[in-house]
Amino acid sequence: MSQEIEIGLGKKARLAYSLDDVAIVPSRRTRDPQDVSTAWQIDAYEFDIPVIAAPMDSVTSPETAIEMGRLGGLGVLDLEGLWTRYEDPKPLLDEIATLPEGQATRRMQEIYAEPIKPELITQRLHEIRKAGVTVAGALSPQRTQELYSTVIEAGVDLFVIRGTAVSAEHVSTDHEPLNLKKFIYDLDVPVIVGGATNYTAALHLMRTGAAGVLVGFGGGAVSGTLNTIGLQAPMATAIADIAEARRDYMDESGGRYVQLIADGGMGSSGNFIKAFALGADAVMLGSPLARATEAPGHGMHWGSEARHQTLPRGKRTNVGTVAPLKEILYGPSHQADGTTNFIGALRRAMASTGYVDVKNFQRCSVVVTSSGR
Amino acid sequence: MSQEIEIGLGKKARLAYSLDDVAIVPSRRTRDPQDVSTAWQIDAYEFDIPVIAAPMDSVTSPETAIEMGRLGGLGVLDLEGLWTRYEDPKPLLDEIATLPEGQATRRMQEIYAEPIKPELITQRLHEIRKAGVTVAGALSPQRTQELYSTVIEAGVDLFVIRGTAVSAEHVSTDHEPLNLKKFIYDLDVPVIVGGATNYTAALHLMRTGAAGVLVGFGGGAVSGTLNTIGLQAPMATAIADIAEARRDYMDESGGRYVQLIADGGMGSSGNFIKAFALGADAVMLGSPLARATEAPGHGMHWGSEARHQTLPRGKRTNVGTVAPLKEILYGPSHQADGTTNFIGALRRAMASTGYVDVKNFQRCSVVVTSSGR
Amino acid sequence: MSQEIEIGLGKKARLAYSLDDVAIVPSRRTRDPQDVSTAWQIDAYEFDIPVIAAPMDSVTSPETAIEMGRLGGLGVLDLEGLWTRYEDPKPLLDEIATLPEGQATRRMQEIYAEPIKPELITQRLHEIRKAGVTVAGALSPQRTQELYSTVIEAGVDLFVIRGTAVSAEHVSTDHEPLNLKKFIYDLDVPVIVGGATNYTAALHLMRTGAAGVLVGFGGGAVSGTLNTIGLQAPMATAIADIAEARRDYMDESGGRYVQLIADGGMGSSGNFIKAFALGADAVMLGSPLARATEAPGHGMHWGSEARHQTLPRGKRTNVGTVAPLKEILYGPSHQADGTTNFIGALRRAMASTGYVDVKNFQRCSVVVTSSGR
Amino acid sequence: MSQEIEIGLGKKARLAYSLDDVAIVPSRRTRDPQDVSTAWQIDAYEFDIPVIAAPMDSVTSPETAIEMGRLGGLGVLDLEGLWTRYEDPKPLLDEIATLPEGQATRRMQEIYAEPIKPELITQRLHEIRKAGVTVAGALSPQRTQELYSTVIEAGVDLFVIRGTAVSAEHVSTDHEPLNLKKFIYDLDVPVIVGGATNYTAALHLMRTGAAGVLVGFGGGAVSGTLNTIGLQAPMATAIADIAEARRDYMDESGGRYVQLIADGGMGSSGNFIKAFALGADAVMLGSPLARATEAPGHGMHWGSEARHQTLPRGKRTNVGTVAPLKEILYGPSHQADGTTNFIGALRRAMASTGYVDVKNFQRCSVVVTSSGR
Repeated sequence: MSQEIEIGLGKKARLAYSLDDVAIVPSRRTRDPQDVSTAWQIDAYEFDIPVIAAPMDSVTSPETAIEMGRLGGLGVLDLEGLWTRYEDPKPLLDEIATLPEGQATRRMQEIYAEPIKPELITQRLHEIRKAGVTVAGALSPQRTQELYSTVIEAGVDLFVIRGTAVSAEHVSTDHEPLNLKKFIYDLDVPVIVGGATNYTAALHLMRTGAAGVLVGFGGGAVSGTLNTIGLQAPMATAIADIAEARRDYMDESGGRYVQLIADGGMGSSGNFIKAFALGADAVMLGSPLARATEAPGHGMHWGSEARHQTLPRGKRTNVGTVAPLKEILYGPSHQADGTTNFIGALRRAMASTGYVDVKNFQRCSVVVTSSGR
Repeated sequence: MSQEIEIGLGKKARLAYSLDDVAIVPSRRTRDPQDVSTAWQIDAYEFDIPVIAAPMDSVTSPETAIEMGRLGGLGVLDLEGLWTRYEDPKPLLDEIATLPEGQATRRMQEIYAEPIKPELITQRLHEIRKAGVTVAGALSPQRTQELYSTVIEAGVDLFVIRGTAVSAEHVSTDHEPLNLKKFIYDLDVPVIVGGATNYTAALHLMRTGAAGVLVGFGGGAVSGTLNTIGLQAPMATAIADIAEARRDYMDESGGRYVQLIADGGMGSSGNFIKAFALGADAVMLGSPLARATEAPGHGMHWGSEARHQTLPRGKRTNVGTVAPLKEILYGPSHQADGTTNFIGALRRAMASTGYVDVKNFQRCSVVVTSSGR
Repeated sequence: MSQEIEIGLGKKARLAYSLDDVAIVPSRRTRDPQDVSTAWQIDAYEFDIPVIAAPMDSVTSPETAIEMGRLGGLGVLDLEGLWTRYEDPKPLLDEIATLPEGQATRRMQEIYAEPIKPELITQRLHEIRKAGVTVAGALSPQRTQELYSTVIEAGVDLFVIRGTAVSAEHVSTDHEPLNLKKFIYDLDVPVIVGGATNYTAALHLMRTGAAGVLVGFGGGAVSGTLNTIGLQAPMATAIADIAEARRDYMDESGGRYVQLIADGGMGSSGNFIKAFALGADAVMLGSPLARATEAPGHGMHWGSEARHQTLPRGKRTNVGTVAPLKEILYGPSHQADGTTNFIGALRRAMASTGYVDVKNFQRCSVVVTSSGR
Repeated sequence: MSQEIEIGLGKKARLAYSLDDVAIVPSRRTRDPQDVSTAWQIDAYEFDIPVIAAPMDSVTSPETAIEMGRLGGLGVLDLEGLWTRYEDPKPLLDEIATLPEGQATRRMQEIYAEPIKPELITQRLHEIRKAGVTVAGALSPQRTQELYSTVIEAGVDLFVIRGTAVSAEHVSTDHEPLNLKKFIYDLDVPVIVGGATNYTAALHLMRTGAAGVLVGFGGGAVSGTLNTIGLQAPMATAIADIAEARRDYMDESGGRYVQLIADGGMGSSGNFIKAFALGADAVMLGSPLARATEAPGHGMHWGSEARHQTLPRGKRTNVGTVAPLKEILYGPSHQADGTTNFIGALRRAMASTGYVDVKNFQRCSVVVTSSGR
């Protein structure tokens, strides 16, 4: 691992880069934007666009999951969110959207103290299934053991296990930790698991048989992880490291290609595009989709970290409402702030650098600018 | 290509520098400001000053193109702007200048949806010709095929093809792309083409026979390219790289010297001067000239990126009005903010470092300051 | 000493890193937060948590020292502060808390001009002793000679000598400087001494026989040392350097392990945690505890530098009041700003990186992020 | 010259450091502040403190020059300022202090258009001489030829030639430039000359026989040089480079030691102290002394760059009034913002790092902090 520097005698550190630290540079060839492909496939599931709506209550409801599917992407429902705790969460979503700044965390801690109801998991997944789109739901590693059979019986196409710093080697003294390898092997459904933020953790997750690995802690725009517990995994470095793990794992596994899904910290279309340039196959979006007219958060955005009962590591953030989901994905844009037309922007970036599909675009050149030095 | 660093395992990046990252340092010799020459020549055309007014509606109208010529520089009319879409664009320029912040892009999209009228191209170029100054007009690569014969028949001295990330190897599936080499060879008029932002792209453009290459994406002050599509080409690095391409091309061509014209991101006289120090022969100015009393944008400034129909990558910016064009170029200044007396400032910088002309000034020493580390 | 760069010809400098410059990165293993130990021991004294309340009047009164002890940590009373100058300092604490911004320093200079009364030292230490918690008091190096016997006779468990840039080799022409080695040898009580900010100074302090060394100038949040006298010792580098001194001293002393206590600049739980990751065994907290409901400063915070009679090097700072001391240490948090639940956050960081105790956590990986490059 | 990096292909640059980029670090030894010496000597003139009041109308009048002398330092009168253009400049100083922001430069250009009167030069220098302090006056290189005999006849102890980027090899086509070497040789009075900002220029100035060299462009706080003409010479690097030139010149001259006087950019006592740590023997202060109650600028501050008739490169800046000159130099401070007690701060910095005089203090260790990376 290169770029090591010495913090002080006897303590070395790597330099790590965020997406804001880098920029894509054109090469000598250009192309028409309409000539590039943005298709993405994981396991047997094909999508027009490599975009996944994050399992966050401010982003994905059964309704917006369905709309994401119809628009060519994938929506993942948080199976530990309000939709599986309350029969009708809409009044609570309305309340959260209007809580005064200083009281939001405390009230959300109360609202999310309500137990999860397995029958609501079943009901929500059925609602999405009925619409004919790909069905995906997410659990945290802590609750997977307890709830996964409900999920499987209800029927999902893709199973997402998503937490902060998920590892394949969790140690616990008071309970048997989830054996991810056995769990995934036994399951009939492809699993996406993460977040991983480094080569080793990701390689171990790939070895569990996961179809996709989430890169990042999730919830970039709403995360206070650095401030509260001192941890940070700058995204550009994390993606590039794990792309290398994917290559190495492909070699050791005799050709199994694990999808790399960047998760968190991509608030603008510019950063969304850089994630692919660094090595992502798909991107899980939070705040950009929380800005949709249809978003259940009404322009407020929060992740599961923000409602932790004793150590919240993020907060409800006002990201505003800018356009319908369709315009956020496909435009047209009527401003240049990187909040709409994500796919049009991706097409143009690929065209400006001469690449025909996302896989090839991962090879494009990047520079580190002064913000990243 | 040196200065490579590792973003993460398996993804390397260069460090790239903007003009703000560098500063010129004095050497041991000084000189009187009146003893230096700021003359510039491209093909057979000679200018007192190495300054080109950018083909942007906020900067160059037929009137200001004429005034630029009379003041010793060059004005380039945007042949896809308002002056070739409307018989009388002045009411529209007035309207754009007074649009509320949030509505400007959308209304500009409407205004610029009006088709280009070939007869107006002819008329505008004739207006400039009549004044006896050097005549130059700009088209985008996309429209060059369609409109160039109109332009040539109307008569221009210099033909400018200007777009974002222009390459000599554009690939398209639904139309035959412009063959720049053949196009320039067939043309009787010297061509300036760009923007190029890297060694290879620029070298290919030089091989097409262009008399000058534009360096940069254009529209620095008004560009949202990084935010929307993740691309950025920091100017100091781009100029230095392409200066090397110029040297190499001079060698391979047996002595053809291609003019290097820095385009975009030079809002202050300080950055304007640094462009020469890095290797530019001339500079295309946007925002500094949009601040002229005579500027058609009335202190507002926008580029063609800002009015793109589906993916605007810049916005109308309020740069204000500071002084007549003559004072912006030749002073005297009555403030020290780098908005006036660009030529006086260039003379003083050359004098302080002891160089007699712009070509020699390209060799001056620069440092990277903390803003660029 | 690596990472040397050249400031100019003939002047080299090291790169030095603050805690804000670095972040902790997860490794491949995770663990349950309840499975980690936060215990700390110095000499014969054992603590549940590696947290020391700084000897500052805004943080530690006899009452809060007692409460710190009851909560599992240690409170150190400033024996040169208001509690040993005034029989009843509470009205003065109230006054300081309400002084207008511009007048605070001057009035504090007056208040602290009152002489120290040895009998009050005795009385305050007895108050703490009576409560049954570990008793610790701090003197500056300048006053140690004069006052230490009073302190020893009153009875302390831990003796703290705390100043800016304390060295074991102080030179003076008008008085015999404190011979730390002899002083500590003669004393029956374990001594914590500092601040040291570099390898050599710390090694010399370790050789005096100190049980613990304070790392840093103290008073990060309230210090104007850089601005006034140009000195700064970025904390991450200081801790890492002195951790190396601890290793080398352990070798030369045949196994004596000196406790390394980071002091100053840890305003958030994130930075508090990074101090351990860099090599600290315990942390002396100022501003985080000044935010306690019980804090004697009522949300204002100042160090002894702020009341220097001729050269104040810090100022009274409004840090606000956020929660009872117990919540600041143990939570629960109701916001994600890193001001509460320091121990919960430390547990989670250790769990996320898979370490079981603080000593092992010192080995965790860190990265330098763009704020530190 | 090390630390070279590549801006782009074929353009290299050094990394250059400002005083804000560095910090002084303590070493293992400390000392009592009263045991250090701040004495300074140039030629036969001895001073208690290494502080020179800059020849700027906002700082030095005949009165404040006298007061500086009485306080142990040196005041240098600008012989091209208001005091030699007007019999009674006080009403004009009052007017400048109260001009509205936007009109200051233009009105100052008018006020300074008044010709210099040689008889006023004589009169002002006599006023200072009568007070019995060391007499020093400054001319720009452009006016030295014309006015120096007046100055010499009036009588000065130290002659200062001060301009931006002064070189010993000025080239001019319309007049014989000042031959510094011959000029200084012929003169009976020791000469201080500058600003130089690099090794070579400084070495050439030393070879002219100057007793002291000014380092820097002057007028840090009020300079717009970077913005207007793209030049900048970060001070830490400039001082260190020129300290090396001093060593090399001492060798080649067989032992002549040229005084290195840092000039400009030292607005706080912290940066003032760092200048010595980098290699300065004395410091010329502008803004810190413009903050004196007695300062002729009444809290406004401007240099000669700010009143240039066609290309002002600085502006009148409001630095405020903080304390009498004596308190600015010797304290006591009643705030920690680095605006007062410069000498007390210098003593403390020297004491904290264990050095006994300024010459030895030049060897102290510095680090580059994150602001300078």
